[in-house]
Amino acid sequence: MTAWHVHVYIQLKDGVLDTQGKAVERSLHSLGHDSLQAVKIGKYVQLWINADSEQSARQQAVRMCDDLLVNGIIEQFSVEVEGE
Amino acid sequence: MTAWHVHVYIQLKDGVLDTQGKAVERSLHSLGHDSLQAVKIGKYVQLWINADSEQSARQQAVRMCDDLLVNGIIEQFSVEVEGE
Repeated sequence: MTAWHVHVYIQLKDGVLDTQGKAVERSLHSLGHDSLQAVKIGKYVQLWINADSEQSARQQAVRMCDDLLVNGIIEQFSVEVEGE
Repeated sequence: MTAWHVHVYIQLKDGVLDTQGKAVERSLHSLGHDSLQAVKIGKYVQLWINADSEQSARQQAVRMCDDLLVNGIIEQFSVEVEGE
């Protein structure tokens, strides 16, 4: 059984106000980063999952997202599985 | 001038205790996800930066990380620039 390294990228859905992103954007502007157009802040979760196949690791990761990691009302996510 | 979409992945350096990751790991185990070996939680920041070239966009993103986004004492980051 292989331990798969799974990368999960979680971000707010389009249309959901990203207050943290707005605050960071303002701070970066005040530090002189004028070329910055927008900022969006999300979560980067890494999972190590024992599974027989890449597909099984991905399915388990998606279930973990649904169960706990992601708030499906306001967040969306994508999953990337890396080999051993 | 192109608006480059820059993805920044921030994670704790190896050896820094990831209390949030540990708590999530425990919660997922108690939900029955027994095949989970480890969890690491970081930040996923998306930036849209006006720049003449990909290289310039990347340099600006790195500067923003150094200036504000990343705590270099405990965190490390990687940057990916996407075309228009």
